[in-house]
Amino acid sequence: MAGNTFGKFLKLTTFGESHGEALGGIIDGCPAGIRLDFDFIQVQMQRRKPGQSSIVTQRKEEDEVQFLSGIFEGKTTGTPIGFIIPNTNQKSDDYSDIKNSYRPSHADYVYEQKYGIRDYRGGGRSSARETASRVVGGAIARQIIPEIKINAFVSSVGEIFIDKPYQELDFSKIESNAIRCPDLATAEKMENYIKEIKKQGDTVGGTITCVIQNVPIGLGEPVFDKLHAELGKAMLSINAVKGFEFGSGFCGSKMKGSEHNDLYNEDGTTKSNLSGGIQGGISNGMDIYFRVAFKPVATLIQKQEVLNNQGEIIEQQGKGRHDPCVVPRAVPIVEAMTALVIADYFLQDKVYSI
Amino acid sequence: MAGNTFGKFLKLTTFGESHGEALGGIIDGCPAGIRLDFDFIQVQMQRRKPGQSSIVTQRKEEDEVQFLSGIFEGKTTGTPIGFIIPNTNQKSDDYSDIKNSYRPSHADYVYEQKYGIRDYRGGGRSSARETASRVVGGAIARQIIPEIKINAFVSSVGEIFIDKPYQELDFSKIESNAIRCPDLATAEKMENYIKEIKKQGDTVGGTITCVIQNVPIGLGEPVFDKLHAELGKAMLSINAVKGFEFGSGFCGSKMKGSEHNDLYNEDGTTKSNLSGGIQGGISNGMDIYFRVAFKPVATLIQKQEVLNNQGEIIEQQGKGRHDPCVVPRAVPIVEAMTALVIADYFLQDKVYSI
Amino acid sequence: MAGNTFGKFLKLTTFGESHGEALGGIIDGCPAGIRLDFDFIQVQMQRRKPGQSSIVTQRKEEDEVQFLSGIFEGKTTGTPIGFIIPNTNQKSDDYSDIKNSYRPSHADYVYEQKYGIRDYRGGGRSSARETASRVVGGAIARQIIPEIKINAFVSSVGEIFIDKPYQELDFSKIESNAIRCPDLATAEKMENYIKEIKKQGDTVGGTITCVIQNVPIGLGEPVFDKLHAELGKAMLSINAVKGFEFGSGFCGSKMKGSEHNDLYNEDGTTKSNLSGGIQGGISNGMDIYFRVAFKPVATLIQKQEVLNNQGEIIEQQGKGRHDPCVVPRAVPIVEAMTALVIADYFLQDKVYSI
Amino acid sequence: MAGNTFGKFLKLTTFGESHGEALGGIIDGCPAGIRLDFDFIQVQMQRRKPGQSSIVTQRKEEDEVQFLSGIFEGKTTGTPIGFIIPNTNQKSDDYSDIKNSYRPSHADYVYEQKYGIRDYRGGGRSSARETASRVVGGAIARQIIPEIKINAFVSSVGEIFIDKPYQELDFSKIESNAIRCPDLATAEKMENYIKEIKKQGDTVGGTITCVIQNVPIGLGEPVFDKLHAELGKAMLSINAVKGFEFGSGFCGSKMKGSEHNDLYNEDGTTKSNLSGGIQGGISNGMDIYFRVAFKPVATLIQKQEVLNNQGEIIEQQGKGRHDPCVVPRAVPIVEAMTALVIADYFLQDKVYSI
Repeated sequence: MAGNTFGKFLKLTTFGESHGEALGGIIDGCPAGIRLDFDFIQVQMQRRKPGQSSIVTQRKEEDEVQFLSGIFEGKTTGTPIGFIIPNTNQKSDDYSDIKNSYRPSHADYVYEQKYGIRDYRGGGRSSARETASRVVGGAIARQIIPEIKINAFVSSVGEIFIDKPYQELDFSKIESNAIRCPDLATAEKMENYIKEIKKQGDTVGGTITCVIQNVPIGLGEPVFDKLHAELGKAMLSINAVKGFEFGSGFCGSKMKGSEHNDLYNEDGTTKSNLSGGIQGGISNGMDIYFRVAFKPVATLIQKQEVLNNQGEIIEQQGKGRHDPCVVPRAVPIVEAMTALVIADYFLQDKVYSI
Repeated sequence: MAGNTFGKFLKLTTFGESHGEALGGIIDGCPAGIRLDFDFIQVQMQRRKPGQSSIVTQRKEEDEVQFLSGIFEGKTTGTPIGFIIPNTNQKSDDYSDIKNSYRPSHADYVYEQKYGIRDYRGGGRSSARETASRVVGGAIARQIIPEIKINAFVSSVGEIFIDKPYQELDFSKIESNAIRCPDLATAEKMENYIKEIKKQGDTVGGTITCVIQNVPIGLGEPVFDKLHAELGKAMLSINAVKGFEFGSGFCGSKMKGSEHNDLYNEDGTTKSNLSGGIQGGISNGMDIYFRVAFKPVATLIQKQEVLNNQGEIIEQQGKGRHDPCVVPRAVPIVEAMTALVIADYFLQDKVYSI
Repeated sequence: MAGNTFGKFLKLTTFGESHGEALGGIIDGCPAGIRLDFDFIQVQMQRRKPGQSSIVTQRKEEDEVQFLSGIFEGKTTGTPIGFIIPNTNQKSDDYSDIKNSYRPSHADYVYEQKYGIRDYRGGGRSSARETASRVVGGAIARQIIPEIKINAFVSSVGEIFIDKPYQELDFSKIESNAIRCPDLATAEKMENYIKEIKKQGDTVGGTITCVIQNVPIGLGEPVFDKLHAELGKAMLSINAVKGFEFGSGFCGSKMKGSEHNDLYNEDGTTKSNLSGGIQGGISNGMDIYFRVAFKPVATLIQKQEVLNNQGEIIEQQGKGRHDPCVVPRAVPIVEAMTALVIADYFLQDKVYSI
Repeated sequence: MAGNTFGKFLKLTTFGESHGEALGGIIDGCPAGIRLDFDFIQVQMQRRKPGQSSIVTQRKEEDEVQFLSGIFEGKTTGTPIGFIIPNTNQKSDDYSDIKNSYRPSHADYVYEQKYGIRDYRGGGRSSARETASRVVGGAIARQIIPEIKINAFVSSVGEIFIDKPYQELDFSKIESNAIRCPDLATAEKMENYIKEIKKQGDTVGGTITCVIQNVPIGLGEPVFDKLHAELGKAMLSINAVKGFEFGSGFCGSKMKGSEHNDLYNEDGTTKSNLSGGIQGGISNGMDIYFRVAFKPVATLIQKQEVLNNQGEIIEQQGKGRHDPCVVPRAVPIVEAMTALVIADYFLQDKVYSI
């Protein structure tokens, strides 16, 4: 396997399976002299972890980060920051029934085909538990760029969506509800819908919108490493993501140029922002915003046909504790990956901008 | 500037401005011993180049590729393949009026802010002319993976779209019309619409769908370098792209897990393919398909407000020869970037799969 | 700081300061399905660790590796292997006197100049304790290429050197003495000399020779990433190394071509091997051998002038437990870095060789 | 093949065979706004090219660089700089006799083993002609760091060497003689010796010393990417190089710590400089100096046994125009690779230093 490192200047390399000893990672390239806010890091971990509310999985994982290096007297020293997150609640017996079978729309089958071996305990490396390390990385990345504001929120669950532009939302309401939807009336509908889905042992997809504010002009490299291309890759690397659009997105493909062009003000800002804060791959100082589509979680608490390693289709009853809808817990992951991208380009910009 | 290299194992590095001496690139990592089909390469160049039909820009560019190394007696030797595409039709006087002004929704302003200098002749490095080098790279990449079939086509222009799943389309019809839309009735509507838009001096966006067939199981690296994440980055790095979705995409976010899961057949194939041929970042042998959104071209043949370098808003009349709709010419670019990604992961797979 | 990752296909990323919580690392790119020999790994750690004999530093460090991921039922799964080595014997009070001063020929001063902050406890990240993680990486790398034999040994200490070609040495004697010199008469002289140096509170340099046998033809990439160039970089990245030569080395620069050329046998082997097993950056199947120069350890148990952070030169008495000669303990480090390079190129070769 | 790119921040990617259409490369990451001195670049090309004097090969190659992008109105724009060097004097018939045979101590055999195909015309990609592109890259790199002085010179030819420390040499004399040895009495001896060797149809090795002055404190990354490790790799990647040492080098391995440590002055400079300007992988502001060993050129104008592709040993008469001693022409190559490394770390330093 390759590809366990994200970033070029601020690099996060992660390891860990859902039911191994620990997850963890190394953050290389963090500037020296940053006084870290450890409470902020742990808060981000709490936002991601299971068991926060009745609508998410009830697995209990402490998700306590232990930092092992790179920090001295509370400040970053510039050396790599090693960290681990012990797996305290492994319960591997829960997963014995999937040892010899491949769950639909999970990675079980392709892992075994590719590697000839698979840690079958709860998804192993393909489990979304892997994202815990990303949240640590993102929480440190945000402290490299404290002036840049990153707010993600749930913008739709199934067919229910926020019917307002993000400018009309109050981001301070995001954490006020279990859904992480700042529009409270919509949040309530979403919550009720998820509860209903959960009763059915089913799951549902959703979308997350992310807004990045106060970005300096000039972040991004204009050809293959366009800022939005890397944001897109970052989002698509999150488990269950099926799509990414920024600025006008797919709607923009239906528009005419005369409607879509963002006319300038005299100070270089633009009157509209269908571009989504990025021109030619480079931030233009306007808000960057994008939307990420998540498929419904594949694990159902229902009977389902699965393939076993004898090439037979058998029925299997899904059980255990899984999320009926992943988007509320994915909000901090979207923010973390966003922070990693923006901090990476912020550092890169020191080299290449005038 | 950084980020002019794409790929890890098969690396394409490109250079060139729209109105410099030449564009070109270096392909490093191409396996030795491949007998290259140079006609195929030139055909791809023709598909991308301006002036192919009445609905695309009438600039004449020969776009003839000259190979300088890496090929001996018709075969690749394994050494880097250097190539250039001379700019034969520079006409730089066409662009003198934009020397001191920043066109809306172009990269003029951010380039000057980032670099303090800008090759103002026709967009310079930010011009889509840069993609000519990508088409060369892609045309070679396809010859590394001849058994894998890559077909892209225009699936919508403005509000007009193909109302059929790709399985009902005949890909051999793609090149039969100027739009590169295999559904001929829809193609005709699109063409008429684009002609109308052109008369108005306006432009319109659209989407391209790409289908990759006969992909072996196991391509992709499961965490940050998921196969679809790199495909997404590749597409988002193309000029004017605003969104990417694969498999069920944004629609998938509205579905329930019980509808969305792809149940297995006994041979490991799946009955449905909402996953889009990729599980956990790894190809599962089913068709990979995705959709890419392009915004309308920003250059209008209309009067428009622009910002000049004195901080003034002035009116400027767009002129010259530009595409009213970019998607027909973007089809070979989408295919090229797809081929670069798939060939790159195909080589990577030699290292990490069993 | 950057540069805490080594390798392209088999990547070792490390973290850790000499007196932090733990050192550790992540090995990404290890093939799946290798049954690991953990005893072998721990033996390598013992060879590197302090306190093995009276001629090396008497610091006690357990150097016990804990593997946290990437291994299931004793075999590698292909996922990243995370590991930690707790620092059990930190004794940070030993180092309080160097908090405000910069020791000659140590990295204290440049770290503080570069980062504005320094973990002054025992050298921090610049301590050779960092190499413990390399030994873990190397011990795993060797299990990827079990058929390739890597033997390093001490070939000189101060002015005392082995006066024989390596072909006349019995590598099975390397571990028979505290010096790790397979020529026992020379080993004894070296040991006596080091004891004498130690009594003086002084230190001495030395060289290590490394021989790699049974290497397949074809490893190496011929331009910037020549096999010997990467071996050289690997060796020069080890603390205290001042020089690297392979094959005929510096002696070769005095020779004539008619003496130096290695004539072929009919089977493609060569009669002589002044090339050192590498032609044009690519292994030719003959033994690869090289020599590495280590400077004397900078920490003396003597009075010495140091610079303090007030810009004053003061006298300081060196104390503590340090090695009078680093080369015996550096033997497993040289082998580890060699194994990392060879395994990396072995994996790379799967992509690019026919 | 991989590994045709050098550098991380300032990246040089090269292509080209000795007898193909052209050599060339792409420099990515060059800062914007540098007014380039093209005469300086061409002078460096002249220093490397064959036929400069009676002691070097009489092949005539114009080695004229054509820049194709990245430069506008005489200044770098920050976009990639593409360039080609046409091969004007190909004479491929000279090499027909080596089509089916493998010359001793050349890369012919390993190329064919590795790639199954070989451009047999004059060494192809393994020819030192490849270094012409490096000289272009280096000549641009130097203009990124104009305040840093890089001087390389021939310090030995065969057994003849300069018997003085570099501090006693006048670098302005380097170009005063065909050897590029600033000690004129030694230069004369070297020249006479090379003429004699040439008459014999033989060749001889030598060493080059390089001194880098006025380096800011802080360049280098302390673990795997130590400044001297990358310098070493850069030098070892040059054709015919067999060894690298910096500062005290191999001599340092014979010394005692009390002799070797560089004591500080109050301003942070050091009284001696056995460290060679680098501590713990980071420049300390003192002169950086190193020495590079070159083997004798493998092509002899003598009869020699070669292996043919039928597995037979046959006699072959070397002919053509080759260098009896490579070091005079290698001086600008050593300087170029040095400049590429230093400029790369200079840019990297912008990210990671305070």
